[in-house]
Amino acid sequence: MTQQRKTVHKDLQYERNRCTFDPVEVTYFLDGSPEKTKQRRDQEQYISDVLVLKENMSMRYKSYKEVYEDSLRIARAVLSKIKKLQLSKIEEYEFVHGIFSERLGSALFQDGNPLSLHYGMFLPTLMGQANSEQQAYWINRAWTGDVIGTYAQTELGHGTFLRGLETTATYDPETKEFVLNSPTLTSYKWWPGGLGHTANHAIVVAQLYTQGECRGIHPFVVQLRDVETHEPLKNIIIGEIGAKLGMNGVNNGFLGFRNYRIPRKNMLMKNSKVLEDGTYAKSANDKLTYGTMVFVRVMLLQDLLHYLSKAVTIAVRYSVVRRQGQINAEQPEVQILDYVTQQYKIFPHIATCFAIKVTAIWLLDMYKTVQSQLHQADYKKLPELHSLSCCLKAVVSADTAAGIEQLRLSCGGHGYMTASNLPVLYGFATAVCTYEGENTVLLLQTARSIRLAAEHLDRRIRDGVPTAEAWNQTSIELTQCAEAHARVFIVKTFANDIKQLNSKSEEFRQVMFQLCELYIVYWALRNVGNFLRFSSMQEEHVQTLHSRLEYLLMTIRRNAVGIVDGFDFDDHILCSALGAYDGNVYERLFQEAMKSPLNRESVNISFEKYLKPFLKSNL
Amino acid sequence: MTQQRKTVHKDLQYERNRCTFDPVEVTYFLDGSPEKTKQRRDQEQYISDVLVLKENMSMRYKSYKEVYEDSLRIARAVLSKIKKLQLSKIEEYEFVHGIFSERLGSALFQDGNPLSLHYGMFLPTLMGQANSEQQAYWINRAWTGDVIGTYAQTELGHGTFLRGLETTATYDPETKEFVLNSPTLTSYKWWPGGLGHTANHAIVVAQLYTQGECRGIHPFVVQLRDVETHEPLKNIIIGEIGAKLGMNGVNNGFLGFRNYRIPRKNMLMKNSKVLEDGTYAKSANDKLTYGTMVFVRVMLLQDLLHYLSKAVTIAVRYSVVRRQGQINAEQPEVQILDYVTQQYKIFPHIATCFAIKVTAIWLLDMYKTVQSQLHQADYKKLPELHSLSCCLKAVVSADTAAGIEQLRLSCGGHGYMTASNLPVLYGFATAVCTYEGENTVLLLQTARSIRLAAEHLDRRIRDGVPTAEAWNQTSIELTQCAEAHARVFIVKTFANDIKQLNSKSEEFRQVMFQLCELYIVYWALRNVGNFLRFSSMQEEHVQTLHSRLEYLLMTIRRNAVGIVDGFDFDDHILCSALGAYDGNVYERLFQEAMKSPLNRESVNISFEKYLKPFLKSNL
Repeated sequence: MTQQRKTVHKDLQYERNRCTFDPVEVTYFLDGSPEKTKQRRDQEQYISDVLVLKENMSMRYKSYKEVYEDSLRIARAVLSKIKKLQLSKIEEYEFVHGIFSERLGSALFQDGNPLSLHYGMFLPTLMGQANSEQQAYWINRAWTGDVIGTYAQTELGHGTFLRGLETTATYDPETKEFVLNSPTLTSYKWWPGGLGHTANHAIVVAQLYTQGECRGIHPFVVQLRDVETHEPLKNIIIGEIGAKLGMNGVNNGFLGFRNYRIPRKNMLMKNSKVLEDGTYAKSANDKLTYGTMVFVRVMLLQDLLHYLSKAVTIAVRYSVVRRQGQINAEQPEVQILDYVTQQYKIFPHIATCFAIKVTAIWLLDMYKTVQSQLHQADYKKLPELHSLSCCLKAVVSADTAAGIEQLRLSCGGHGYMTASNLPVLYGFATAVCTYEGENTVLLLQTARSIRLAAEHLDRRIRDGVPTAEAWNQTSIELTQCAEAHARVFIVKTFANDIKQLNSKSEEFRQVMFQLCELYIVYWALRNVGNFLRFSSMQEEHVQTLHSRLEYLLMTIRRNAVGIVDGFDFDDHILCSALGAYDGNVYERLFQEAMKSPLNRESVNISFEKYLKPFLKSNL
Repeated sequence: MTQQRKTVHKDLQYERNRCTFDPVEVTYFLDGSPEKTKQRRDQEQYISDVLVLKENMSMRYKSYKEVYEDSLRIARAVLSKIKKLQLSKIEEYEFVHGIFSERLGSALFQDGNPLSLHYGMFLPTLMGQANSEQQAYWINRAWTGDVIGTYAQTELGHGTFLRGLETTATYDPETKEFVLNSPTLTSYKWWPGGLGHTANHAIVVAQLYTQGECRGIHPFVVQLRDVETHEPLKNIIIGEIGAKLGMNGVNNGFLGFRNYRIPRKNMLMKNSKVLEDGTYAKSANDKLTYGTMVFVRVMLLQDLLHYLSKAVTIAVRYSVVRRQGQINAEQPEVQILDYVTQQYKIFPHIATCFAIKVTAIWLLDMYKTVQSQLHQADYKKLPELHSLSCCLKAVVSADTAAGIEQLRLSCGGHGYMTASNLPVLYGFATAVCTYEGENTVLLLQTARSIRLAAEHLDRRIRDGVPTAEAWNQTSIELTQCAEAHARVFIVKTFANDIKQLNSKSEEFRQVMFQLCELYIVYWALRNVGNFLRFSSMQEEHVQTLHSRLEYLLMTIRRNAVGIVDGFDFDDHILCSALGAYDGNVYERLFQEAMKSPLNRESVNISFEKYLKPFLKSNL
């Protein structure tokens, strides 16, 4: 995977020549160390032939069915290559997990990966919620044998409100089995990735009934298909849910049960248990299961970072090559990145990439701390971690999706083309606003633990409004408060982190300070109303901030290409005609157009079938 | 096309029963009169069988090539039906134009219509810019004969900056022909709808050279393909530009010329002319050509209204049927429309629909006034019309696209499904942010004629910054000012219009006043910073506004279903499993899922090809 350096567009080369710092410093900062950069690049290099192969297939012109089949073809190619390395099982898992994560995953699988829940949810849930006996049995099979899994929690009628899930698992002490049922249409599992036609097992979350009582939701391992023939088992109703905005290769599925029986030992029993006679033993702390969800949200921040940094790389490089209009009639057309409005659309998102990175690192560290405290039965910090992970996921996914869309629009009409890769990135990012916790709901979860809107809430309660109803009435303000809470946390973390860059070059630190300040100034101005209302900020401060914003945009302009080069996306990972390293935007757009199957014939069949009769009938 | 009233979901029926006004009043208001409502419904009824046929084809599962072919199949079916009516040519044109406009057009052609530029740009440009002799020749052929046209202006390298277009048309007095050339890769025409494989003619905008001088851009009618065989003519390089975020049936194309000759009379000469000897006669007023662009922008406001009102219909109906979570633990799960955060996400967009409508009517009236003044050589109001049409198009398209996306997200995961129709509507709406003038550029055009950011601009100029450079430096503020200008105009028009509803029922007027006030309060709070900075608004006013916002949301809640029912979208036009009139959301989602070709087989071929070998190799 060599970048095509020989033919670099002169405008891009000029930008690279005048960059004030070495872009590899950005790369090392984001990867964590030069060693980790090398390791990542080696991995990417190792599967580069699959990436190249994938690009030549032009998935965007295929039918829905072909897209799914192609996703598995690519998965098989990647997994086969990794098998050849003969790693240990845990090393292999980590290699696959790295490759399937969204930096490469969203390049390998432009329509999503039907196996991602096997690696991303099925295995981690077994690790977190199966007891050691169950782990030995299932994880081994998931590694080496017959099991391809998914995680089936969301139902047609319930996503956010987990207590409302309707699938039932009723314990039958006679046979020592659970009987699974889907009592209503809305109780069908709906959405799990790979569930449609890929997985042969699933972890199914269901309402547990034993000894005549409902014990709330619990996880069960359920076999769905015959491991030899892959045919669905009897009393399982299964299929896939149909076309979506994006990720049409993911094979999201539905699943229903008709008195479907599984052995007692298929309930994951690390925490709560059902004994042979049907006695229910409750988990010591029911918050233990939050762990997986928090971990998944930390991983989502990483995914979002990859989406946004790809989009910003594309927009910066294109805006340097694209010339349009004149600021001054005597001069040639302007690189559109020289328009301040364009800088304003793009540079804050460069800053956001670094803000996400430092936040994700901080959150991961806190997660590890809390995990080790949990092992010592210390649950003090769990609520704070839960609350932070909620609002950070909500704010970062909303910022990323809106940011990518703004970056796409900043590329004008060409940003609407699939060949820009921006629509695909948006399709991934906006999905994150909904899954693993809908954003508004998450913000309200956070708001439960802060006090900024407390006054209005109190007043409503004093006025005789019941507490729960008052909470609803105040919820617009509460979500805004939670968002502000997340924003303050990000700014603090960003600013603190930047102060600790002593080992880096002065030039690089300069750039990081500018980006951090831009992030702060940008968001302060976006929320200027709140600052005027709730702080000592005055009109003259606003004007100062605005001048500062313009100064920062101008200053960052010079290094913009250098910074995004530092994100270190190979062309085959960036997958964009507008964002390629060499900047040959127009040639690539043409090359991509020529891949359209319509361009293989000078006259399409529709002329004879539909146009000609129409024309002739007019004569 | 009967709404399926028999099985209406009880929650939706309850909402309809308690609505305080008759929804048909909304319908009449939006159509303009009961007579116009009847006429529209009759037209929709007349082509209803094509709509039903289209839905059964599940275009979303087809390949890219099939999507294009299917678009023409549908176009042919619609046009054949209309032909049967044996209308006059002008009546037929208006019928087709009505059917192809986005209310129905975006339902008939969920991936866009390759003939829309024939009706929407080719014919109107002939009417506006061809002289009477040319009109007689070309319009007749476009009506009755051999011509399918498109409008080819944008190039690979130039969209916004028209003066930068590179295609040349050089007059050769020897042969009395223009010689067309594409001197560079970036000079290729790029984007025109239907250009790829549908049109056989195009109006091509090119730099006119005659007597050794460049005379700026002018329009030419150019034949592209043989009318009998449809093969591209010699020295024409033509094809289509490939996959996009949406509208993949539009057949957007590219076009290049190699010394391609056309007769002198193919230059559209209503305004400027080239005489036989090559003498150039300039148009009396070069602003005359703005007319078409302004008219197209007025039509775009209508299109945007249809997209947004469909999206808001879907979100309201779904939010009434969907129940999730509990506000109070003793009560059943809540209709999500009862969450204030959900009302805040949805109701302002209901208000926006009406704001767009009154604005579009006002702008169309002004357009007609200006047109009649132009005929009397009175150009006074043209700059104001141009300026207003620019900022209104920019603000309304940005509001609509962002609004649809917010409405899509308000439907949670199910909004991500194509069956919701929300991704398709977003694909249409966001494209409008870029075409017919990129939004930021349009805002700056407007800003040229207003004075709010004048102070900073003046200061920069006084400080010695050249004027053009100072304009660029101040452009963030200028775009914000232009946006504010548009917002003020919309609010004024909305408020004035509402005052003149004396002939309507008190109940309907009530609702309109609430929506108008919501629009004002919502945008005032969104821009609270500017109000605090630039008006006499104080903190206590902000709190009052916030209380008023909550009050209005609560009040509108009761009539939300009634209002969107009044938008009068038949299920076959709304095309949404979430938004159907009967509210049977979950049944429809299931029905849509069963249309996936993957669900026709219990085991997909990929199991044998990719999964099984992978599993076995692990054993």
